[in-house]
Parts: sequence; structure tokens; C-alpha cells
Amino acid sequence: MTSLSNRPLHELEQKDMFVRRHIGPSDAEIAQMLEQTDASSLDDLMTQTVPGPIRLPQPLATGETKTEQEVLAYLKNVAAKNVIAKSYIGMGYHPTLVPNVILRNVMENPGWYTAYTPYQPEIAQGRLESLLNFQQLSMDLSGMELASASLLDEATAAAEAMALAKRAGKSKSNLFFVADSVHPQTIDVLQTRAEAFGFELEVGPAASVTEKDVFGALFQYPTSQGDISDISALIAAVQAGKGVACVAADIMSLLLLKSPGELGADVVLGCAQRFGVPMGYGGPHAAFFATRDKYKRALPGRIIGVSKDTNGKTALRMAMQTREQHIRREKANSNICTAQVLLANMAAFYAVYHGPEGLKTIAERIHRYTDILALGLSKKGMTPVNGHWFDTLTLDLGEAKADIVERAQQAGVNFRLDLDGKVGISLNETVIRADIEQLFAILLGDNHGLSVVELDAELTSAGSHSIPAELLRDSKVLQHPVFNSYHSETEMLRYIKRLENKDLSLNHSMISLGSCTMKLNATAEMIPVTWPEFGELHPFCPPEQAVGYREMIDELSDWLVNITGYDAICMQPNSGAQGEYAGLLAIHKYHESRGEGHRNVCLIPASAHGTNPASAQMVSMKVVVVACDKQGNVDMDDLRAKAAEVAENLSCIMITYPSTHGVYEDTIQEICDIVHEHGGQVYLDGANMNAQVGVTSPGFIGADVSHLNLHKTFCIPHGGGGPGMGPIGVKKHLAPFVAGHTQFDLGNSNSAVSAAPFGSASILPISWVYIALMGGIGLKKATEVAILNANYLVAKLKGHFPILYTGQNDRVAHECILDLRPLKEATGISEMDVAKRLIDYGFHAPTMSFPVAGTLMVEPTESEAKVELDRFIEAMLSIREEISKVEQGEWQLADNPLVNAPHTQYDIIETDWQRSYDRKTAVYPVAAVKANKFWPSVNRIDDVFGDRNLFCACVPMSEYE
Amino acid sequence: MTSLSNRPLHELEQKDMFVRRHIGPSDAEIAQMLEQTDASSLDDLMTQTVPGPIRLPQPLATGETKTEQEVLAYLKNVAAKNVIAKSYIGMGYHPTLVPNVILRNVMENPGWYTAYTPYQPEIAQGRLESLLNFQQLSMDLSGMELASASLLDEATAAAEAMALAKRAGKSKSNLFFVADSVHPQTIDVLQTRAEAFGFELEVGPAASVTEKDVFGALFQYPTSQGDISDISALIAAVQAGKGVACVAADIMSLLLLKSPGELGADVVLGCAQRFGVPMGYGGPHAAFFATRDKYKRALPGRIIGVSKDTNGKTALRMAMQTREQHIRREKANSNICTAQVLLANMAAFYAVYHGPEGLKTIAERIHRYTDILALGLSKKGMTPVNGHWFDTLTLDLGEAKADIVERAQQAGVNFRLDLDGKVGISLNETVIRADIEQLFAILLGDNHGLSVVELDAELTSAGSHSIPAELLRDSKVLQHPVFNSYHSETEMLRYIKRLENKDLSLNHSMISLGSCTMKLNATAEMIPVTWPEFGELHPFCPPEQAVGYREMIDELSDWLVNITGYDAICMQPNSGAQGEYAGLLAIHKYHESRGEGHRNVCLIPASAHGTNPASAQMVSMKVVVVACDKQGNVDMDDLRAKAAEVAENLSCIMITYPSTHGVYEDTIQEICDIVHEHGGQVYLDGANMNAQVGVTSPGFIGADVSHLNLHKTFCIPHGGGGPGMGPIGVKKHLAPFVAGHTQFDLGNSNSAVSAAPFGSASILPISWVYIALMGGIGLKKATEVAILNANYLVAKLKGHFPILYTGQNDRVAHECILDLRPLKEATGISEMDVAKRLIDYGFHAPTMSFPVAGTLMVEPTESEAKVELDRFIEAMLSIREEISKVEQGEWQLADNPLVNAPHTQYDIIETDWQRSYDRKTAVYPVAAVKANKFWPSVNRIDDVFGDRNLFCACVPMSEYE
Repeated sequence: MTSLSNRPLHELEQKDMFVRRHIGPSDAEIAQMLEQTDASSLDDLMTQTVPGPIRLPQPLATGETKTEQEVLAYLKNVAAKNVIAKSYIGMGYHPTLVPNVILRNVMENPGWYTAYTPYQPEIAQGRLESLLNFQQLSMDLSGMELASASLLDEATAAAEAMALAKRAGKSKSNLFFVADSVHPQTIDVLQTRAEAFGFELEVGPAASVTEKDVFGALFQYPTSQGDISDISALIAAVQAGKGVACVAADIMSLLLLKSPGELGADVVLGCAQRFGVPMGYGGPHAAFFATRDKYKRALPGRIIGVSKDTNGKTALRMAMQTREQHIRREKANSNICTAQVLLANMAAFYAVYHGPEGLKTIAERIHRYTDILALGLSKKGMTPVNGHWFDTLTLDLGEAKADIVERAQQAGVNFRLDLDGKVGISLNETVIRADIEQLFAILLGDNHGLSVVELDAELTSAGSHSIPAELLRDSKVLQHPVFNSYHSETEMLRYIKRLENKDLSLNHSMISLGSCTMKLNATAEMIPVTWPEFGELHPFCPPEQAVGYREMIDELSDWLVNITGYDAICMQPNSGAQGEYAGLLAIHKYHESRGEGHRNVCLIPASAHGTNPASAQMVSMKVVVVACDKQGNVDMDDLRAKAAEVAENLSCIMITYPSTHGVYEDTIQEICDIVHEHGGQVYLDGANMNAQVGVTSPGFIGADVSHLNLHKTFCIPHGGGGPGMGPIGVKKHLAPFVAGHTQFDLGNSNSAVSAAPFGSASILPISWVYIALMGGIGLKKATEVAILNANYLVAKLKGHFPILYTGQNDRVAHECILDLRPLKEATGISEMDVAKRLIDYGFHAPTMSFPVAGTLMVEPTESEAKVELDRFIEAMLSIREEISKVEQGEWQLADNPLVNAPHTQYDIIETDWQRSYDRKTAVYPVAAVKANKFWPSVNRIDDVFGDRNLFCACVPMSEYE
Repeated sequence: MTSLSNRPLHELEQKDMFVRRHIGPSDAEIAQMLEQTDASSLDDLMTQTVPGPIRLPQPLATGETKTEQEVLAYLKNVAAKNVIAKSYIGMGYHPTLVPNVILRNVMENPGWYTAYTPYQPEIAQGRLESLLNFQQLSMDLSGMELASASLLDEATAAAEAMALAKRAGKSKSNLFFVADSVHPQTIDVLQTRAEAFGFELEVGPAASVTEKDVFGALFQYPTSQGDISDISALIAAVQAGKGVACVAADIMSLLLLKSPGELGADVVLGCAQRFGVPMGYGGPHAAFFATRDKYKRALPGRIIGVSKDTNGKTALRMAMQTREQHIRREKANSNICTAQVLLANMAAFYAVYHGPEGLKTIAERIHRYTDILALGLSKKGMTPVNGHWFDTLTLDLGEAKADIVERAQQAGVNFRLDLDGKVGISLNETVIRADIEQLFAILLGDNHGLSVVELDAELTSAGSHSIPAELLRDSKVLQHPVFNSYHSETEMLRYIKRLENKDLSLNHSMISLGSCTMKLNATAEMIPVTWPEFGELHPFCPPEQAVGYREMIDELSDWLVNITGYDAICMQPNSGAQGEYAGLLAIHKYHESRGEGHRNVCLIPASAHGTNPASAQMVSMKVVVVACDKQGNVDMDDLRAKAAEVAENLSCIMITYPSTHGVYEDTIQEICDIVHEHGGQVYLDGANMNAQVGVTSPGFIGADVSHLNLHKTFCIPHGGGGPGMGPIGVKKHLAPFVAGHTQFDLGNSNSAVSAAPFGSASILPISWVYIALMGGIGLKKATEVAILNANYLVAKLKGHFPILYTGQNDRVAHECILDLRPLKEATGISEMDVAKRLIDYGFHAPTMSFPVAGTLMVEPTESEAKVELDRFIEAMLSIREEISKVEQGEWQLADNPLVNAPHTQYDIIETDWQRSYDRKTAVYPVAAVKANKFWPSVNRIDDVFGDRNLFCACVPMSEYE
């Protein structure tokens, strides 16, 4: 008897090993779970669950499964085709030095990157504190009263500012003015947004604003070409006409410049990228957005506020969520769901690490080098076009431009080239003396004879006048203790760790958020993100330097075309909501191209996610709600009636599939047909794509356009609340109408939806690696196991909690809704109590009260192992028993472990424990918890108090003690 | 008024920023602390503290301070001079696939790499569990009853086996036999060790052992050249003569081969490198060492055992520490202090992640590829020399060798070349089909006409016979749940995290272990370690492929020469203890070279660390103890007397400076003189080098040789108990006598002390980066602040705890000893109680009962900020008050928070709290703890129970619940 298995080589090679790593249950466990779910095989389960007509007849063609070794080696070769040049392009993107302690312990740390948006603040105080630091930073540098917890990029932040000006301003004008010195990509995005909103947009010299009647205006400070002037008079002029004055500012310059707030601005926005976040060929980075207190309810996106918990302890949470799209729907301030939390945190940590003095030194160094460069060039007759500067010089090279640019490219140096006869040079934190010498040589020839040391001496003795004296900052910034405490690496490391430890992320336990698809973010997928070949490219670098990026993006696009059944992919939208917006724009332009620009009605089922109507509002569509029937499905009669009724003006329907109720509606093809019959287009929301991949596809079903949440189905981590990526797939007829870009030829002349041509390009390798590793077979199996996991939960829980909706054969798709309303009615215990009690059991709550109030929607994903599902089931059954005790009067409604949840360490050290249950019941309700306890750092937080006493800045350290 | 500071450029460049990052206190805090320490400046403090005659007159010449950006860019260029070839060299080092989840979450995670040796098991259960997994793995694969928690490398493990055979065996012989098929570097190290111990060593054909009377023998299995044969008869023959039979085995082969244990071996050892640890040009990796239960008390190094805590809960700790050098001194089993914990953990996690089936598949794949290669070559007449194989073929290429080797080098392929007319080819986990095709092409020419697919088909149909049928393994391995549970990446990630969270490391709080120098391990220092250019080199690759390594090592050597005041550095010893051994060997050989080989007395002060006498024993020196006076200093009269008494045979003195008592003895130069006068050499133990760098130096003081703990003074992290590096510095006259290497020309013909020429080469970049960043100025300031921090603690604590020893002006060096004996006498509260109570305050205990029983030795290092020192002071003062309450009878000795410490979560959930203090006092004794609580995962552990009921393997999962 031999112990050798004699397997053929291809079995020994284990090319499908990653599929086993990605999918939680082993094949043996899958078999067990199928049995307990009354299915004989995964295929049988699919037959039972997915309507036959929409099941894909052929397998995916995304390739074979591959090993991590193979895929990373291949991608490394692709990445090597990118050229890392020295970038002086500027335009809002700068090389930066990511502090190594932040790189490794935040950006590359699953404790930070796998967390979700802090909807459960009791187990998210770490990133909430960091986001509050980001807000404080935004407020301090901008000189404003209030700031949000990041937006997607500077251009979209500008667009949000324009929308705020219209919404919250008092002017009756329909005109928004943009100074022509604003970054061109920002103007590009504003044009798109203005057209969709029906605003007039005028671009002109900044000073000309004084002649206009505008509802708002945007200035760049310093200008895109580097100049600095006192814009306070222009701001005042806008305000005099009841307009809202907005300023897009460079965050680094604000260390030295008088803040826009001090100049009178109403809104200040910009990008925090150069605070320690790699350029990443365009993203992701965090935009900041700060404004006056009076606009707080009009603020787009998320804002973190200070409140207190039930024990009176200071505690943070997302404030004023009632402004947001998931509540206000088409009346929301914007359709934004995703922030850029991971990147905002990096920027905040960068500020914490450097502190005000360190940051100012960095800003002064950049400025000094710029002064040295300008002085040297001026001595040789190459005086900058701009009379003042912080870090950017515009040089009129006249006829020498071509030669100099050639010389620069030979030297691996990129200038800004989109200026007629001129070049732009923006310096940055990474610049050293040798770089200045190189620039002199490129611009003046090798025999320039200039000395950096001598020029520096001349400047320090004469003083610098390149910033107008009246615009030098004298107000202090970042005086809070948090920015003045953690300047040694040891202290910084511990601060990062202390915050990390407060947050529950995927490295602790399942986060079964329905509609969020919190699956594995595999390390192999994450590793390329911090390769310099992907991190250090400027989005507007010469295309021949980004060949590796294009190859990767093209291949990813091809795969997504195959997976979605569409004909083309637009990779620009940098969030799901941006994708919806981009998709609806394409629909609108398509109608317009056929002379049907009047079509402006968007049908949306009552069950839709709030982002859908909010997105429709952003393209000025009129939302008509289609009813759902008792089973939660689209009421087909109502759909037919509404479609017919609005037929003449029907633009589209927005529908999610499987439905937001977690069910494969078998009428989906009919829905598409009805809409098409009435001249409409079908927008299929890709939020639930994880239940489609390899099993069906939106294109196959009959939809025209979808966005894909790459941060759900395709493994980009949620980063604690961003980044995301929301590329859209379209059928051929819509392809000419997707986003273009002013700085990059995307094959069309459309305007842009995001600042960068490919959105947050540097996280696309995550999805690329995922698809490359899984192969077509693995992707399909992932979908099948996601559905199995959900149905396994249903099988185990349905006897204890009603499952609100099911489809054919009583199956759910990849998620299920537990209806807690009957229990609440019977006992008073709410879905909120259950959600918070789950924290005591070591779990993040499922999605609460969406899409139906009073319910919990659970999406386990394929990555959760059976043991973890069983742990969750054990917790839910135990909670059900606890509810029974309330029901039976054993515990009073006012005093039981559910209403008092979550329980903290502070609770159980109380000497005087007066509760009707013991400490063990409070914090170790089942044995599994004991081995792996996760402690919430605060008790249940008082949302009402927080919103009534809105405070969105850093509290002094003493408050935390 | 301008806000610009007008600083000159060199100030804005902040080239000294890293110094500020590395050193905890800011300059302002340094000023405050100086004031509270009664010193007017750092220089004044040095004048007060360091004896004038030994203060260095000139600054260090290690260069200017540099930025992290500069240093990493420079080192990247140096690293680029290394060539990553495909290594088929074998000889115990193999390319491997580090699972990405382990790479990022263990190897690159400060939570794992900054922890200390688990002397405080209550806050080290995570790595203890992982080490237990390593032991189980070692036992299962070797087929033995007991295994230790790793040794330094395979060669030194073999040397330890030899020592064990002599010590624990029953034979009277003085001969140790080594099969000539053992790896040459192992034989090299054995020769060194045998000579030092005075053993005879014979190397010969394995079979010839039957003709010898030996106290032990070592066989390699499979042999170094790849052959496999049944060695059970040879083992039996050794044992028949009362010898101890040792087997060095390849860990991967043991998945398929009958275990050495099943063949009757007494000791099985080997290297676990190929279980997911990079080759790193020689290290660090973990050696495994397994033996019979009867040899448990003779086992070298550390062993983890299962015990229970005071609540009866299963708990792990280091077992049988009484065997170790710090207790048994010259009677210890070996001088080993450092294990390779980080690497052992990586190997254990590798096994946990793959599980028995996965590992077997990997082993079968490697074997299949080897079979395919052998079959193809045989068909072309190139039949392997070895008749059987697992993964290694020896090919007799005859006259074609030179051409083929040339072809291989052109293709970037390395073979083993040290075999006359032959080459060795060892396959490994990373090999893919294309590699086999490339090997065919290299060996046979491009037109070889062989097909991997066809060869595989032929093999699977005919079956493989390359492993003798009787040696195929049929026993099961790794059946414990831990090796069969975590096979999805999500589950693995959570398991790693769960263990990490049980351990207190530097990312939580200060670890002020006296004599261990737990300073910052900066991220910038750690990043290069996992660069492939450093990770993927075989230690015996052609030297021209390691030019970058040599450049880095040479520069590091030059800097260390400057820092130590010596003339040469030997980089081979891969731990501090190895360094001591290597240094004493050099001294011995030096004496021999002068015809004074009889000099064999080693003077050691009574205060010495136990490793010193243990090391002396390893070179057969006779230890003569020199008394210390009441102040803890060397009793000069006793020294004079002893030195004179043994003058004729005086070999050396081993002395630590500053002394192990934390004091700069002002007699140090006189001590050197006295020893020199009597013909002896001065070995200055480098453990306290952190109090010398830039301020004084061993060479300047007058010593002849020292080892440097790069893992103390030079920032290599402790890895939870290893790796370390212990290079030695020597004066010119000793330089010819340092270690050489059989496989690498180190400029001498001496034999080796470690398996690899430069020890654990891949962690040397850590120290290189540290020195490069700090510059001479920064290094000196680090020393000064380390001394300041210690004296600040003294200033704050001396009124509450007696400081046992001080030097001139009542100053301590970089550490201080708190004498708890008077308190114990008065109250019964012991140093152990204080140590454990510190855990409740969130601190790792200082060094306990070393160098003086009943004391705590505190070494804060320069990296701790004032705020952290103050937190520690607050904790110690609070503990002092607690002791007072016992003293005053407020608390009974049997029931107080000190004797019950540490307190766990489980304690405070007890409903029935009967203690004389409340829960808050137990776990939140001061406010600072509340904000950052670290929970021990078990209560105080019963060491006696554990040693009496020794159990050193995995317990079933159910035990943990």
C-alpha cells in the first residue's frame, strides 16, 4: 500500500485553490448545508431558486482559475508597463510621502480596510474619531464652521457645492459662475452636472463675476495655473447678489495662505490627496467639504457628530442622517452614499502625525523650492507667468516648449502640458534639491550655472514675496490635542492601533449587511494596490506612461462585459451612486440623440433603495413610484398602468435585481419588455450583482444599463465607508453616451462625471485579481454558495423569525429579510434592540429597516464558513429566547439585555448591579463569545441628542477620559 | 507680519525628522524631564552619569541623518543589485510561497513582530498557542513524542543534538559520527562545536557507523544529495552501542516519507523554512527539534507546555524553564536564549492554513515534478545518480557540466555546484510546468522533445517508485482540529487576529524589559525585509548574484566598526548567545595561535547573565566567579586576586557594560587592564550597548571582543521571541579567528558557527536602515534619551521603591532595578505579584528577578514618550499604594488585587464577587486604563502544575471552549 495518491499533475497543481480560499464553506460543508436546505446539489438549488428563463445557458468566459502566484506575477509584469515619472503636473494631484507607519498600519491593514460604514457607532468609535479629526482638519484649514467626513473627489465636491448653492441659497438666478482658473476637470464635471440639473453655467475670468447675477460661483485658490490673489472682493460681490460663494482650495497651500473662510467664502472644498495618499492614477482620495453652520442641513454626504451614550459618555456617530438619500429619496441633498473613509482617515492620520508645525514646515519647504525655482528661472529670463504662487509656476516657453518638453520626457519628468504654449510646474512634498537642479537643467540647459544653495541664501535674506503679504495666514490651525500628541512613531502606532481596536471589521466576524456584500477582501487582491507602479501615476500623465493601467483596465472591462452581458463598460464613476447618475445621464442623452429629450419620467418600484430616486433627481427626472404587491414584488398591473400613463414621457425604470427584497422576481423580463414597449430604457441597479454572476446577467435579462458596485461583488473592501467604484455596463446603443473626459481621450466628446478618467483607478487591480483568480467556474460557484449560505440561514431561522419575502419554491436569493415587526408588536423589543444585542454576541448587525422598516436584512455572502453561519444562527436563536423571556414577563421591557444592549466593560464593572439579569448573560450570552469577545467602546448612542446638539468637531482630550 | 518662518532650506528639509520619530520625548519634553532629573542638559546628564575617561572624544562617523524617503530609495537601489534567480540549490533552503494572508498579517504585522518572548504568559496566549501548533507539527511530521518551540537553524540544531547525545546518552564514547551525506554546512557547524566541546567527530559513509563506538550519530533523511534509504538498521546499530541516533530531516518530505520516529530515531531535527518562510539569503527561519519524552529535561531551547490558570482554565506557558541558561548557568543544556518565534509561527500558520491534505498535495506536487524531471532525463540517458528521491536529483554531467552550468546561469537558474563533476537539482513548491520545460532545455538542449504532460501520464499509469515502497508514510499527521479548521482565507485571517489580540506587544504599550531594549521597530526599517530582492536569495547562490547584500552588509559592518571601536565585524552569529559563543571561540583560537591553548579560565562576575557561563561551558572553559561588592560593582580586590590566581590559565573575562545592574562602573578600564596584564582577553557582553552608542564604545573602553544584539540596540524586532542577530566585533588581533564557512569564502579557513555565512541576513536591512536614518547625531541622542528616560523613572519612583544600584552622582545608566524585597518582607507581596498586577494596568512587566532575585529591572528605552513613562509611573505609584493597603491590613494578604492579579474578563462577570476590593479596582485601577484596556486572556498560570504534568502538544479544540 502506497501513501501516494497518484493524482494527475493538474490536480496536484491546485489551480483552483483560491476558489477554496475565497469561499467559506468547504465542499463537505456545502454538501451538509445543501442537505439541510433540501437541495440535492448546488445546481438543484439554482434550479429551485433562479427563474429558468433567465439562467445563463453558457459558462462565463473570463478564463480558467489561476493560482495567486501566477496572477500576481502576471499583474506585476503588466504593472511594469507603467512608467513612474516625476510628476509636476499638479492640477490637484501631487506625489506625496505616505508615512510608512500609516501605509502599513492603516492602508495595508484589514483592521482598517475591511470595516463597513459606521452605521453601528458603538463598534466604530475608532474610525469615527479619525473622521472627526478629518472634519476638524477641514474646518481649520478652510476656516469654516462645519465640515463633512469626505466626498468623492474635488470635482464632484464642486458639483455638490453648486447644488448646495442652488438648494440653500437665496438667489433666484439660474446661473452658476465658474472662474476659468478652476481646474479643467472640475469645470468638466460641473458642466455635466449643471446640464443635468438644468442650471446655466458660465466659465469666465474670475473678476467678471462681479458683472453677473448668479446663484453661486466657484473660484480656485490658488488658481489652477498657480496664481494667488485676494478673492475676498469677488466673494463679497457674489454674496451681495445673494449668491453662494464657493472656493476650491489646495489643502497644502492653506497652511500658509489666509483661509477662504477668512476671505468670506460660504463653501470651501478641495482634495486631501496630498496629505499622504498616493495619486493612484486618479484615486481614490478624499475630498473635503466645509461650509457655514447655517448650511448644515444642506450639506451633502456624511457628517460625524458628537453625542453621548446611555451612560452619558461622549460618543460619536453619523449625524443628521435624515438629510441623506436613504431617508429623503428624491428630496435628498445628493445621491451620495459612499464617502472616502479610508483615504480621509489616512489624510487625518497624516495631519495627526505631522501636527501643525510639521505640516507648516512641509508647506514652507514646498514653497521655498518653488521660490528657488522661480528665482533661478527669473534670473535667466524665464519669469513665471503667474505673479504669485504657492507651489505652481506657469512658464511661457514660447517656441522652446516642444524641445523642453522633449527634454523633460527624456528625463522622466512630467510637466502640465494642456496650456497653450505654456507649461505648468507644481512642486510637492517629495521634491529634493536634486530635483530643482534637474528642473533647471531641463528648462535652461545643463550649463545654467544656478546654485540652489545660493538662491536659498538670497531668498532667506531678501524674504519671499511670492505670496501676497495680505494673504499670508496668521490664524492658528490644528490646536487640538490630537494633532499635537502623536509625533513619535511609537505613539502614532499605538494611536492607530487603539482606534483600530474599537472597530469591528471582517477580521473579527461576519458582517452580514444585506445589500452590502461584505465578502472576503483577499490579501492577494490588496497587495497590488500599494505597488508604486499603480500608486505613483498622475491621472493626466502621458498615456504612454500608463500602458499597464490601460491593459489592466481593458482586460477588466472585457471580463465585466462578459459577466454582465453588456457591450461596453465605462470605468469612470467612483461610487455606486455616481454609477447610477452616469447611467441615467447616458439614458437621457440617448433619448436626446433620438429627438426624445423630453422623456423625463423614471419609474421606480416602492421597494427601491433611496439612492435610485435621489439619482433620478440629479438628472432632473420625475420619479413615478410603482407599487409592490404583498409578496414584495413589482405590482405588474400597476407597472403596466403607470408605464402606459407616462408612455410619452417615459425615460426609464430603475430596478434592482434580485430585488431589494432578496428575491428573484420571475417577472423581470416582462418588466423590461413593458418598459421597452413604451419607449423606456431599463436601468438595472447592480447592488445585488453578487446573486447574478455566472448564473444570469443584466444584459441577458434584457436591461440596458447597470452600475456595478465593485466594492460589493468584486471584492474592493469597504474601507470603513469608502472607497468604492461604480463603473457602468451598457448595451451598444448607450455606449456613445457614457462619460468622457476633458484631459483624456475616452473615445467620445461627452463631459465627465468624475475628476479622473478612470475614477479610482488604483483599486481596480483588486477586482482584476479577484476575477483572474476565480476563473469563470469560481465566480459562478461563489454566486451559488452566496445563495446557499442565505438559504441555509433561512432554513435554520425561519422557524423562529418570519422570513418576509421569498421567491419560487420559497427560496431567497443571496440575502433574506427577518421580519421583527410581529415580535415588536408582541413584546416591544425592536429591530434596533436586536441589532444592538448582536454586538454583545460579537456580530455587526445586519442591515436594519431597509428595505422594510422593522426588519433585518441578512446577507452572509459566499465567504462566510459554515462555522460562522452557525455561530450567527446560535446568536439569533439565543436572542429569540431572550425575547421570549420578555414576552413571558420574566424580564420587564424596561430592563432586559436587549434594550440595554450593547453592554460595555464599564457596565459590568459596576459594583451595584441592579439589573434583572446577571453580568454573564449580559456579555457572554453564549459560550462562543467568551473565546473571542468584542467589546463595544460605548453604550447605545443617543442619536436624537446628537442631532439636537450638533457638534461636529474634535472635543478636547479631557472629554475622552 | 508674515507667517512664513524664513528658515533656511536645510531646516525645512527636516533631514533629522526620523530622529524625532524614533525618540519618544519631544525636545520640549526632554527639557522638562531634564529639569525633573536635576540635569541642565543632555550633555550635563552624560557628564554626571558616564565616567569621564570612557566618554568618546569624537562624534560617530556613521553619516548625516537622512529622510525615510532617501534611505529607502537608496537601499532599493542597493537591493536591485541582487539577482533573483530560480534556485534549485536545495541543501535545506527552498523557494516557497508565503501565503499572502500570513505575509501581511503575521510577518508584516507589528502585532506579531514587536512582541517579546512570552515570559508573561497571561498576555501571550496567542503566540503560545501558535508555538504549540509548531511543536505539534514538529512531533507529527518527525514521529516523535516531544518537540521544542524552535531553534536557530538546522546546523545549530544538529549541534544541539550532538550535545544532547553526550549529555543525556549512556555511551562512554567521545566520538560523534556524522554521515557524509549530511548537508556540508551542518558538518561545518558540528566540527566547530565538537572541537569546542572536545568531542571527536568522524564524517563517513552512513553505513560505516555500524563499525564505530559512538555516543551519537547524525544521518540526513533524505540525504543532502537527495537519496532516500531505510536508515532504521543504522539507527538501531547506534542505539545498540548506547549511542543516540539523530536524524536531520526535510520537513516537506516527511509528508510522504515514513517518519524518522517510525524508523527508530532518538532525535529528529531540521528546518521549517520551506513551510512558508522566505529563504532570505540564509535566514531567519525556525529549526525544529523533536525527541523522545525521556530526553525532555535535556531538550535545548524553549518548550511550550499546557498548564492551567488559577481558575482552572487551560493555559499555556514556557515549560521547564529551570533547564535554561538563565537558571542553570554553566550547567544549562545550551546557551540558547533566542528562539525563532516569528518564523516558527509563520511555519505553524502555513500548516494550519494548508492542513494535512493541502500539505500532502504540495509535497506530492513537488515529488511529481521531480519524478517527471527524472523520467525525462533518464529517457535521454541522464539518469540521476541517486536511485531514490523526494525532490532532489544529483546528476553526473561529466564534461558537459561547465556548459550546462553556463546555460543555467544565462537562464537565471541556479543548481547546486559544490559536487565534483555533478550538479544537484532540488525542486520546491513554486515550481510550475514551465520550469520543468526550462530545466529540460538547459540540461538537454532546446530540442529535447519531452512533454511534461506525457511524462506525467506515463508516471500516473505506471506509478512512481522513486520513494522506496517500505518508506512511504502511512501514518496520519496533523489530525488536531486546529490544522483542519482554517482553510478559507476569512477563517484564517480571523484565527491570526484572534491570537494576535491575546498578546500584548509594542503597538499597545511600553515593554520596559531591563536588558532587552524593546525600542521602536520603525516601519521604514521593516519594509525592506519583505522585498523580494532580499527575501528570495539562497544563501549559497553565486556571490555575483548577491552584490546588493554584500554592499549592505559591508556598509553595516563599517558602521558597526565605528560604533563599537573595534576593527572588524563577523556577521554570522544568528543570536546573541551565538555571538558569545563565536567570540569566546575567537579568543580561544587566538590563544592557541600563540601556543597558549591551555588558557581555559573564564572570569565572570557574579552579576552576569546566565548566558555568559553557559557560553563559556560551550567552549569548555572553566568558569571562575568574581564577587560583586555591596554596590553591585565588580569587587576589584577579588578580581585582582582571582586574575592573579588563575593567571597562567586565564583565557578571558566576560563582563557586561554598563553592568547588568544598570550602572556605568567606573572601574571598567581598570578591569580590562588587570585581565590584559594576566594574559587574558576581555569579552564585553553587548547586551547593554544601547547605553554606549555614541557615548562610549567597547573598543574605546579597552575590550577585545563583543557581540551586538542587533535585536536590542539596533532595532530588529523581537518577533515574540526571535529572530535575533548577534554579530561580533573584534579587535584586529582576533579578526583572523572569527567564523568562516564551508560554502562561502569569508576570508579565513575557520569553521562555521551558523548554517548561513551571514546568519539571518534578511533582517540586517533593519539595522542598516536604522543607522542610516539616525546618522551619528541621532544615534548618540538616542543613547542619551535612553539614559534620560531611565533616570527620569528613577527620579519619580525612588521615593517609593528603593533603586538597588546607582553609579556616580546616583545615576543609573539606561535601566534601573527596583528592589521589591523590603516590601515583600514587610507585606508578603512579591515582585511576581507586582509584575502580574502591572498587566491589570496595561503594562508588560519589567524584567523580573534578574539580575537580582526579588527585583524588577526597568528599561524604558529612548522610544518611549514622556506620556507613556508618566502612565507607567502612575501605575507603579498606584501599585505602591495598593501594597500599603496590604501593609496596613486594609486588605488581607490572601485577598487583594495584587495576589489575584492579573484579572480577566471572566473574573469580573462573576455574579458572586466575594473579594475585598471591587471590580473597578480590579480592572480599572487608574483612569488611563479605561481608555485602553488590555485584557489578559487567562488568569495567573500555575507553573508548577505545568511542569509536573508536562504536556506539550495541541489540546483538542473542545478544551479551549
